[in-house]
Amino acid sequence: MKLLYPTSLKLDVASLEGFGVTLHPYDVHKLIPEELVDAEILVTWANTNLRDAAKRMSKLRWIQSLFAGPNDELAAGFPSNVIITAGTNLHNETVAEHALALVLSAARRLYEMRDFQNQGKWPGHLGGFLPDRPQGSFTSLKGANITIWGMGNIGRTLAPHLTALGANIRGVGLYEEIIDGIQVQTNAALPSLLPQTDCLIMILPGSRATWHSLSAERLAKLPQHAWVINVGRGVCVDEDALAHALKKGIIGGAALDVFHKEPLPESSPLWKAPNLIISPHAAGGRPRYSELLIAENLRRFLAGQPLKHDVTAGGMYSTSPKNSSTLKASL
Amino acid sequence: MKLLYPTSLKLDVASLEGFGVTLHPYDVHKLIPEELVDAEILVTWANTNLRDAAKRMSKLRWIQSLFAGPNDELAAGFPSNVIITAGTNLHNETVAEHALALVLSAARRLYEMRDFQNQGKWPGHLGGFLPDRPQGSFTSLKGANITIWGMGNIGRTLAPHLTALGANIRGVGLYEEIIDGIQVQTNAALPSLLPQTDCLIMILPGSRATWHSLSAERLAKLPQHAWVINVGRGVCVDEDALAHALKKGIIGGAALDVFHKEPLPESSPLWKAPNLIISPHAAGGRPRYSELLIAENLRRFLAGQPLKHDVTAGGMYSTSPKNSSTLKASL
Repeated sequence: MKLLYPTSLKLDVASLEGFGVTLHPYDVHKLIPEELVDAEILVTWANTNLRDAAKRMSKLRWIQSLFAGPNDELAAGFPSNVIITAGTNLHNETVAEHALALVLSAARRLYEMRDFQNQGKWPGHLGGFLPDRPQGSFTSLKGANITIWGMGNIGRTLAPHLTALGANIRGVGLYEEIIDGIQVQTNAALPSLLPQTDCLIMILPGSRATWHSLSAERLAKLPQHAWVINVGRGVCVDEDALAHALKKGIIGGAALDVFHKEPLPESSPLWKAPNLIISPHAAGGRPRYSELLIAENLRRFLAGQPLKHDVTAGGMYSTSPKNSSTLKASL
Repeated sequence: MKLLYPTSLKLDVASLEGFGVTLHPYDVHKLIPEELVDAEILVTWANTNLRDAAKRMSKLRWIQSLFAGPNDELAAGFPSNVIITAGTNLHNETVAEHALALVLSAARRLYEMRDFQNQGKWPGHLGGFLPDRPQGSFTSLKGANITIWGMGNIGRTLAPHLTALGANIRGVGLYEEIIDGIQVQTNAALPSLLPQTDCLIMILPGSRATWHSLSAERLAKLPQHAWVINVGRGVCVDEDALAHALKKGIIGGAALDVFHKEPLPESSPLWKAPNLIISPHAAGGRPRYSELLIAENLRRFLAGQPLKHDVTAGGMYSTSPKNSSTLKASL
């Protein structure tokens, strides 16, 4: 049995040996070589050859994607008997770390300091003796009300770091539940949550259900000093409404790692919006612990057991990869 | 008995009532009013009137400074029987939070993203699909070797946040000891520690003993990708050597919150140094929990007990406020 692994990232291939499966590297940007098209297992990362693979790999039984949301694999036209498993949890740490970096840069105004530095100016108003967390400000995580919108695996990874710095965390998710001690409510609670939010961290998947979740109406419900951080998907934010809210001082600022269109087009009003931090989709894109997931699913596969994070098993992606039920799988 | 409290910061004065001491606000930039010069207790924060107070407050018995290092109070000329207590621990959280913000901004290169944003450019090389922590890089705290130089109260507050993100922490302090599970060594260990350090966080007090602790020689011992963060005192860094090291790529970058001279003079070579983040002494300057310390020391004072963080009690500041024995008191 052949397993093809991508050369588009570094994998500790030795840790996948011993399963009685032969391991073969392949280039994700080239057609699958003739001698490998009979492989039964395909590990994918940033592939551009999936449509061809779907046509030619007639013996394929399982695709292990390293993306949390394997939308490309689902859309490539593989027969319905090919199992597709997602790279769930492989991106939690990197995205959470980046989100924390953006939140702290916002609170401690590192972006504003940088602007002064680039002009050879000392931003004295941001240093020296200052009041600690004056009313109506977001200058520290201590005591700040942070709402995590999209309380999936990344949110669960991020929350303890924020809590350790003294923040009060509330979650918004698909269900009313308690997750790791954090009260999670549904979107219905947003009208009461937003006015009490000092920082809103969005970690929603992209789907029709989450399209423009952050609308002008919801922006207007945030306090004037509130920040918005988006490390989920760009389509969840109405970018024109956000640019307007920043320009008019309706909110305090925003840090975006994702956008409707990436790279952000020159014509976007976001380039000129004040108190906006632009990050180039840099939060994730670096899966960790891939070998552990591949090895565990490989063992399950060979034992005839259900695979972990199977997005073709019904439920999550059963009707369409673009509906709200993808929330948990995509996070 | 009169206690004078400063109006240079917001204090919850009500929490100091009930001790049988009358509480009087005063302006730290004006001479102490005639009707208050007979006070026995003076709380200080960012005062410019200390030399006059030292001459005129003949009944003064105790000064509670809110600075971690009450150098101004010590140098103002108060009689030796006036007890001076430091604002130890009041700045731990704010400085630790700012240090964390700087470390993350360095690792996730938010400063470089900002420079691109200001030019209307998308920094594509910092986003998308990237290798996770390639050899010889500092791109995440996960698995990074972080050396905290000056393992006092701020370092102890900071360390768990770094550990939670996956960093390996080593400390450098006055003694060989284990602090909160972290191995602390003395300066003698630096030649072996620095070459293994991905990020060096300096939290040293300013003194003759710490003057130019980070020298050209020590900079040369760091790996080329290493970052230096300084939230201690500016005099601990040889700024010319650091500017040279940044220009020549001897180290990866630096984030400085403190400088020899503040504001940083126009003539400083640091303004033009690459991969340097300049923060305007913004880490601290916002004491927290001041009331708790004042109240506890007030109770002790009235009960005739030794006060907490008494820098006049011998030991710490007994010979000179400017020697290495000030390390712990100043942190």
